[in-house]
Amino acid sequence: MGVRALVFDVFGTVVDWRSTVIREGEALGRARGLHVDWAGFAEAWRDGYRPAIDRVRQGELPWKSMDELHRMNLEDVLERFGVEGLGESEKDDFNRVWHRLDPWPDAVPGLVRLKAKFTVATLSNGNVGLLVNMAKRAGLPWDLVLSSELIGHYKPDREVYLKAAGLLGLSPGEVMMVAAHKYDLRAAADAGLRTAFVPRPQEWPNRRIDLSYEDSFDVNARDFLDLATQLGA
Amino acid sequence: MGVRALVFDVFGTVVDWRSTVIREGEALGRARGLHVDWAGFAEAWRDGYRPAIDRVRQGELPWKSMDELHRMNLEDVLERFGVEGLGESEKDDFNRVWHRLDPWPDAVPGLVRLKAKFTVATLSNGNVGLLVNMAKRAGLPWDLVLSSELIGHYKPDREVYLKAAGLLGLSPGEVMMVAAHKYDLRAAADAGLRTAFVPRPQEWPNRRIDLSYEDSFDVNARDFLDLATQLGA
Repeated sequence: MGVRALVFDVFGTVVDWRSTVIREGEALGRARGLHVDWAGFAEAWRDGYRPAIDRVRQGELPWKSMDELHRMNLEDVLERFGVEGLGESEKDDFNRVWHRLDPWPDAVPGLVRLKAKFTVATLSNGNVGLLVNMAKRAGLPWDLVLSSELIGHYKPDREVYLKAAGLLGLSPGEVMMVAAHKYDLRAAADAGLRTAFVPRPQEWPNRRIDLSYEDSFDVNARDFLDLATQLGA
Repeated sequence: MGVRALVFDVFGTVVDWRSTVIREGEALGRARGLHVDWAGFAEAWRDGYRPAIDRVRQGELPWKSMDELHRMNLEDVLERFGVEGLGESEKDDFNRVWHRLDPWPDAVPGLVRLKAKFTVATLSNGNVGLLVNMAKRAGLPWDLVLSSELIGHYKPDREVYLKAAGLLGLSPGEVMMVAAHKYDLRAAADAGLRTAFVPRPQEWPNRRIDLSYEDSFDVNARDFLDLATQLGA
């Protein structure tokens, strides 16, 4: 296929945000004597992400980093779940849970194999500092960190995919987008990128999500190890 | 000192551009029967870099990537050294010698040690694709690639240093600039960054360059291994 670089969606595709937010929420709850449905909390916090991004994309909000959008949404979610009494620095620290997400078990060994054959990069709406802190902690061996923050557009804006290829010095067809989310892959394909779908059934274990393989994607893979095998890495 | 991240000048500080350009020039010369002073050629090509960057910085030229500036200057240098008969694709390939530069012998082992304690990033005027290709080939273990291309300003513009810290989510004082060139360190210090001077006497072996240690830098180190030792990494 002539693919030279793989660019990865991160939240949900590489890392398991849900389990980590639940785990840190439970720890916070124990420390502060809070009784909260942390699974519901985690999902509500994540659910606030797309509408917030869309407000930036549509110009309703000036550019805000993902850290800032998470922090803004955290206030709403704390209120909805009746969590009171946290100080500003406690909230700031909890907001950085998104820097501390655990990878899916196949992510690091899969990336190590893929990195030997391809350039591997993030292509995430997460801000650069968040992605770097996450990678250092989790051992994600990125060749480089590409972020919407560097491009000035959020996915799924077409500019993100085209600019990523341009920064790599490659044509769009030499770059493959890897994601667990079909809307991201469809936008990448529209911009001329190759696509690999890696469904993550545990991202939303209690929600009906379309996890079916599709021939319109160049690759459908069970996980990153299967992706490496299919790409000869 | 509270340093969290080290950002590195690349050309001359991490990689030995001179030897690599000479070696590839000699190989090209043998293949094409050219008789050229390749050491002089390499130095003349590199000498064209700062004036070209300055033309962009002063708005005389629209933004051009380092690849484009090298390619523009290559035409001049080929003419000055009387090299004729190269095709466009041969010139394009030779221009990418800057993607294939060898690191100084201490660079990779020093970065591996430093990476265990700090975030390590490029902060180079080289374009992203160039820096990624170089790192893949040479085994430079960057956590991320920061480039003037991502910031829209060339060093030593103040914006480059401030924006690098901002992208890392750090204050300028938590970031240390590492370079073999004092002008780069002085500009970084003016922006509030910490500084480490690592002189590279073999960058310009036949030219009088100021290689003396200075107390105004936070660290003066013999090489990256010495830098790691001094920083406790």
